[in-house]
Amino acid sequence: MDLEKFLELMSEAGFFYPSFEIYRSRAEVGGFYDYGPLGVELKRNIIEKWRRIFVYPYQDFIVEIETPIIMPRIVFEASGHLEHFTDAIVECTRCGRKYRADHLIEEELGRRGISVKTEGLSFEELDELIRKYGIKCPACGGELGNVRAFNLLFQTTIGPYSENVGYLRPETAQGMFVSFPKVFNLVGRRLPLGIAQIGKVGRNEISPRQGLIRLREFAQMEIEFFFDPEDAKCPYLDELDVKLRIIPERDVAAGAKEPREFGPREAVEVGVVPNEWMAFFMGLATIYMNELGIPLDHQYFLAKLPQERAHYSSASFDQMVYSERFGWVEVSGHAYRTDYDLSRHMKYSGYDLTVERRLSTPKEVTEIRVYPNPQRIRDAFGNEASKVMQAVGKADPSWLASELGSKGVVTVNGYSITRDMVFIKEERRKVFVERFVPHDVEPSFGVDRIVYVTLEHAYTEIDGKPLLRLPPDVAPIKVAVLPIIRKDNYVSIGKRLFREFSMAGVRAVYDDDGTIGSRYAKYDSLGVPFAITIDDKTPVDNTVTIRDRDTKAQVRVGVSDVVNIVVNAVLRKLTINELAKSMGLQLITRDKR
Amino acid sequence: MDLEKFLELMSEAGFFYPSFEIYRSRAEVGGFYDYGPLGVELKRNIIEKWRRIFVYPYQDFIVEIETPIIMPRIVFEASGHLEHFTDAIVECTRCGRKYRADHLIEEELGRRGISVKTEGLSFEELDELIRKYGIKCPACGGELGNVRAFNLLFQTTIGPYSENVGYLRPETAQGMFVSFPKVFNLVGRRLPLGIAQIGKVGRNEISPRQGLIRLREFAQMEIEFFFDPEDAKCPYLDELDVKLRIIPERDVAAGAKEPREFGPREAVEVGVVPNEWMAFFMGLATIYMNELGIPLDHQYFLAKLPQERAHYSSASFDQMVYSERFGWVEVSGHAYRTDYDLSRHMKYSGYDLTVERRLSTPKEVTEIRVYPNPQRIRDAFGNEASKVMQAVGKADPSWLASELGSKGVVTVNGYSITRDMVFIKEERRKVFVERFVPHDVEPSFGVDRIVYVTLEHAYTEIDGKPLLRLPPDVAPIKVAVLPIIRKDNYVSIGKRLFREFSMAGVRAVYDDDGTIGSRYAKYDSLGVPFAITIDDKTPVDNTVTIRDRDTKAQVRVGVSDVVNIVVNAVLRKLTINELAKSMGLQLITRDKR
Repeated sequence: MDLEKFLELMSEAGFFYPSFEIYRSRAEVGGFYDYGPLGVELKRNIIEKWRRIFVYPYQDFIVEIETPIIMPRIVFEASGHLEHFTDAIVECTRCGRKYRADHLIEEELGRRGISVKTEGLSFEELDELIRKYGIKCPACGGELGNVRAFNLLFQTTIGPYSENVGYLRPETAQGMFVSFPKVFNLVGRRLPLGIAQIGKVGRNEISPRQGLIRLREFAQMEIEFFFDPEDAKCPYLDELDVKLRIIPERDVAAGAKEPREFGPREAVEVGVVPNEWMAFFMGLATIYMNELGIPLDHQYFLAKLPQERAHYSSASFDQMVYSERFGWVEVSGHAYRTDYDLSRHMKYSGYDLTVERRLSTPKEVTEIRVYPNPQRIRDAFGNEASKVMQAVGKADPSWLASELGSKGVVTVNGYSITRDMVFIKEERRKVFVERFVPHDVEPSFGVDRIVYVTLEHAYTEIDGKPLLRLPPDVAPIKVAVLPIIRKDNYVSIGKRLFREFSMAGVRAVYDDDGTIGSRYAKYDSLGVPFAITIDDKTPVDNTVTIRDRDTKAQVRVGVSDVVNIVVNAVLRKLTINELAKSMGLQLITRDKR
Repeated sequence: MDLEKFLELMSEAGFFYPSFEIYRSRAEVGGFYDYGPLGVELKRNIIEKWRRIFVYPYQDFIVEIETPIIMPRIVFEASGHLEHFTDAIVECTRCGRKYRADHLIEEELGRRGISVKTEGLSFEELDELIRKYGIKCPACGGELGNVRAFNLLFQTTIGPYSENVGYLRPETAQGMFVSFPKVFNLVGRRLPLGIAQIGKVGRNEISPRQGLIRLREFAQMEIEFFFDPEDAKCPYLDELDVKLRIIPERDVAAGAKEPREFGPREAVEVGVVPNEWMAFFMGLATIYMNELGIPLDHQYFLAKLPQERAHYSSASFDQMVYSERFGWVEVSGHAYRTDYDLSRHMKYSGYDLTVERRLSTPKEVTEIRVYPNPQRIRDAFGNEASKVMQAVGKADPSWLASELGSKGVVTVNGYSITRDMVFIKEERRKVFVERFVPHDVEPSFGVDRIVYVTLEHAYTEIDGKPLLRLPPDVAPIKVAVLPIIRKDNYVSIGKRLFREFSMAGVRAVYDDDGTIGSRYAKYDSLGVPFAITIDDKTPVDNTVTIRDRDTKAQVRVGVSDVVNIVVNAVLRKLTINELAKSMGLQLITRDKR
């Protein structure tokens, strides 16, 4: 593809553009992007497609919720983000400029032809690289200070008390963990349970560049999928007609760069993917990218090595998509978060987040019981004896036994109890249920990156003219209404059709400005799948043509039918050929323009 | 309505609920709400309905965009929010607790049977009320300090430099103002231009209560509608078949409580609403509420008096909707923001935000011209003369003339120019265009409040059983699939139908648990418009019944047609009666359950 021409089209069409243009010289506004009129529609359609692939077909056990962007400090103490969600920052001791240390080192050494990989390096190791290669401040040449941690959470204050610190969430995920007990109750206390959320997150990047690929504010589509690790079967795994292209962990460790192909079940059976649900979501992710126009050889899953993984993850894959502009880009992450998050929130909230598992075969458990010896207690405590016996009965028997075992004496409610005052017994009991913390698999998608790679893959040129082959269901404008020339009766029919589309909620555009060829070219370049042309025959026999963006084929239909036909084609995802066939209409040959 | 039973249903159905339940005792988390699985769908459908009423029908001049939630400080300096977006706060001098002063005064005096209105009072007047009535800290009885301003913007830092302050937007509006020149260019530099945005905003309330009605984080749907104040005609005004119920400004001033009815055009003509576009959006807002199930006598527009209006507004109406629980609630605000915001951003950014107006009749303007007197300049500057003449030619003539007029001498590029060295002339010239700052009308909707009043109005009881009569297009679940009894072949047909609905993206539920009557009642109470029943006839003749939530009427249709029929009914907003009629089917009488 011609990257320059693509970027020019992007800029002119205004799908997206840097925010705060009028203040760019007066404020720090990097890492923020606006979506223009076309971009908003495209983004929404891409999100809706995700719902149609990940949520709606599995709505009996995957539900969507919405939780706040602002969350109180304790959530991120529990989640580990306050401690771990940091980048390495280094400050110039002369001019005070701050840099992301790993990026600075890679760029500076890259300029000298030295290739280093900084991912997973400690601050000390980064410091060592800076000293070893004598890296200086690229702006002023000053000496750099020591590398330190910079936390990427956007901090704020909730309410009028400055000690009530809150943060913008860096992932929607914590909303699902924190409200897990509530949602679990609402859906009838069943596992597996997927909780989906689509929403904004904030990451206070040190110096974001790369357009939509690294933003300070962006949107995520995530599912926290809770399941019983002892019953991790996915009944839909074999329904997926898809291959996973994966570079497994051991290949990554060995330096391999080529993905291998696995069936979803096979990937689990050979131990490349740790469980069926994770393989299932990786399969859906592959299908999702496919349906957005990204071919299989432009995507693969890259296993993360232990030192590269997030603090919560016991296994992790990045779904990588090829971009002409940015190279391989991570569009989704698939992490096996185990019971890490729920266990942490259990600890920090004091709230029981376990669920019950019915045992298929009852289990024998050994329990320690402590019974008071009434005779000895009466001897020692006289008429206090009944109170003492009550206190002993209420105390935790394991603790009593252990204290008495090690020290021979224990104080209960102020009474000093010795070993001889109780009988300690081990008793065996049958149990039919047990409690456990659910495990969690997380497919997590970055909406903005997906918007970008979808646009890049849709772009092509035919005879030097740009064509945006967006799938019709994600294309922002569905139909262009074009009188072949600007003549009164053509215009009035065109405007009436445009109004009908508008009232039916179909995204449409009306245009009578310029030659028909230049208008076809314009709407082809904006990805509009259908063009309605009002031509010489229209006033005569009340017909118009519908033209297909990709094949340029046309069909002729009645004016009064055209709105319904286009709505149907869009809803049912029909091409014009399928449409013609289903309606018994004849295709008109490719137009020349 | 039975408010208690309604609230109980809301709590059980989990449309929405306070966020961070597990941390409620350990962190300040008031003013945040989650949407549960049903609430997310309902909210999204309510938003989509807004688009279908406010945006899609007018898509040739109203476009949607998306801009960041986090914005740099300078935006809110320009917008006036840093100065004006405050509430009055008062702190207890003994225990340090903080209160919103106006609410505290109204509540305390209300308890004593004294009614006061605090809206629009100055800090001094609030202080005076506190002293006069001896109001103390309600928690500890301590003395209250002086009332002061508390800014409601959530503050944060953008990037690693602490001086780069940013805020969460308190309205989506500023995004439309700041990106106005960009969007104006993208749509072909035409007015009128409506820029819509739907998104989250943050307002750091001092002590939010009242559930969804007053949140710290909530969603808005706003349009900034830019127009030429000299050409403010709305061609769609007379298309609106609706009456506006308004308490106009002079009625409010006179203490009237009863709204009066106006046609949209009439409201403008009698001077109650300042322009046609504002009346147009107030008309659409009335229709929107109507379609959400809110009758006309449960809504009206309340004019705001000058001291009650926001700092940017020259005229303002609150759209009020009646709530059994909260009284009259503002669901949308309609403000005439004039050129206030664009003018302020022009000043703070130094960016030209004016647009061109073509004059219908060319205008004569008087311009001051200053021509050098070559003879005198040569006398004074010798061989520097040509440079001096160039400098004089480039200087702003109005400024030159004014300086020379008042002081007799002016320094241009270091040259001292006296009055005798130039000719000053007034010249008349015809101009065909002029530049101006567009005016702006803003309809602004609070999504969460609308979700609440929609639910409250949908609630009713029939024979003591809750029924949620949500309009089918906003109902979160469209169809319940219910085998009349849990028998293998019934179950398998039911599950297959449920899967078909799911794959078609229709929000559905499958349930075979309990009596059919109790299941009908359950899904009636959740607002599910259609129930499919698999009964004794189904395995025999491959038919099922579709039951209507509101009328309880049923039609019998083929199993293979039912998915298409329900999809069509939902898309085309048909009741079961209309459906039966259009398909020539016979209605089955009301079921008894």
